[in-house]
Amino acid sequence: MKLVRYGEAGSEKPGMIDSAGTLRDLSAHLDDITGAALSGAGLDALRALDPASLPAVTGNPRMGPCVGGIGKFLCIGLNYSDHAAETGQDIPEHPILFFKANSAVVGANDDVVIPRGSRHTDWEVELGVVIGTAAKYVSEEDALNHVAGYCIVNDVSERRFQMHLSGQWTKGKSCDTFGPTGPWLVTRDEVPDPQNLALTLDVNGTRRQTGTTATMIFTVAQIISHLSQLMTLHPGDVISTGTPPGVGAGIKPKPVFLRAGDVMDLAIEGLGQQRQNVRDDD
Amino acid sequence: MKLVRYGEAGSEKPGMIDSAGTLRDLSAHLDDITGAALSGAGLDALRALDPASLPAVTGNPRMGPCVGGIGKFLCIGLNYSDHAAETGQDIPEHPILFFKANSAVVGANDDVVIPRGSRHTDWEVELGVVIGTAAKYVSEEDALNHVAGYCIVNDVSERRFQMHLSGQWTKGKSCDTFGPTGPWLVTRDEVPDPQNLALTLDVNGTRRQTGTTATMIFTVAQIISHLSQLMTLHPGDVISTGTPPGVGAGIKPKPVFLRAGDVMDLAIEGLGQQRQNVRDDD
Repeated sequence: MKLVRYGEAGSEKPGMIDSAGTLRDLSAHLDDITGAALSGAGLDALRALDPASLPAVTGNPRMGPCVGGIGKFLCIGLNYSDHAAETGQDIPEHPILFFKANSAVVGANDDVVIPRGSRHTDWEVELGVVIGTAAKYVSEEDALNHVAGYCIVNDVSERRFQMHLSGQWTKGKSCDTFGPTGPWLVTRDEVPDPQNLALTLDVNGTRRQTGTTATMIFTVAQIISHLSQLMTLHPGDVISTGTPPGVGAGIKPKPVFLRAGDVMDLAIEGLGQQRQNVRDDD
Repeated sequence: MKLVRYGEAGSEKPGMIDSAGTLRDLSAHLDDITGAALSGAGLDALRALDPASLPAVTGNPRMGPCVGGIGKFLCIGLNYSDHAAETGQDIPEHPILFFKANSAVVGANDDVVIPRGSRHTDWEVELGVVIGTAAKYVSEEDALNHVAGYCIVNDVSERRFQMHLSGQWTKGKSCDTFGPTGPWLVTRDEVPDPQNLALTLDVNGTRRQTGTTATMIFTVAQIISHLSQLMTLHPGDVISTGTPPGVGAGIKPKPVFLRAGDVMDLAIEGLGQQRQNVRDDD
């Protein structure tokens, strides 16, 4: 299934995309796509519905973040060996964890807003993992059983805020609009191998990032198992699993950062596409 | 006012402590103490109630976290000059920010649970600041107008997870039960000077931390103004503002860490007390 939340920010309705690509409304069956809906039983109940019986949504509504009420938004840093190389940093011994403020999360195609005073806003296409059932002290073998599904995340990053405001990356990751998430939550059964997905990101039509989740340093299962030794992962939590090479900060001979008027296009195999217009915070 | 959330975890009811120290139930007037209740108008509506008209709660119910539905739990590191000195680190140029997972938040007197594999769980008494109205790009002068009130936070920290699991402090800050918050949210009008509050923390009756918010490197107003340049602070967000000297990791000649059976007692002038029993995660 491809689950979505559509409509105006703050009042999104639940929906699904049927096999013909039509948006169908799920409001009669649940209030929202949140952690409470993402258990195995919750997803099975949605699977049991006949999509043709659901109202088709006309027009071209906004896609909100594909999961609502996100408890925590966990991000893994430097998780692709070639991206670690481009930033000049060593391969980490364990998954690097930081948090993105959940107030940064927006829809897949919402504007990305450059904060006042920012000159170093950068892009990062990433595989997002949405937790479906609580995970604590889980093994790598069991880890993927706790996943509801996958989505695209743009882990937008302000490099000066991240690196030069007295430490801890989260400052550069948590600005408002820095977390486009979606458009779809694609359930786990439709992603047979999360370690074999192509990722791309274009800026103004120029391909900037090309990668595959096959080159992750820590797999999705390893990440979930590791994090679950530290804290409970709850239904509706999102883990963004790191970015492949090609971020703006790594471009030679001179880094390239986002400017108002730029357009980002992101894609992950099987998970759809995102497009964000970049603008200043006036 | 002293606002509280009392009852079993996950089903806390709103209440207030009257001038005689009696717990009064607020359920007839609001569903919960969350960001939505913490605006100036929301607090004024509660102030207009006659406490004597509210049902007195008998018994000795559990105190939950004094604010529910916390969006983000922001923590400031190394914010007391003498604590920075005991950890051997330089005074930061800007407030150091990391996040504590909101899934770590518990009541003021709930057990603190040592995660499996932990040998370095430590204490940190801190002044917590609860946001009442959204703050974005606010000045230092205006910053405190966005505060609903204050509370005690124990920023429990696993030092090995924090420092030796490939970076970013949040790993050692986000374990389940590592965020006792409360018992009361004391509204801003009852805390005339947040920069003149005494803080203490005892372990097993031995005084370990003694401090005053007068020695903060960055004041509450400076912290709010700084963070609001990076992201919107929303009603119900909590900022924990750093800890004074005396953490276990800084004890000479040998650090002292928490063990099952230990008892922590925390107090901040005007904000009440916390007591946590420490246990292993069996």
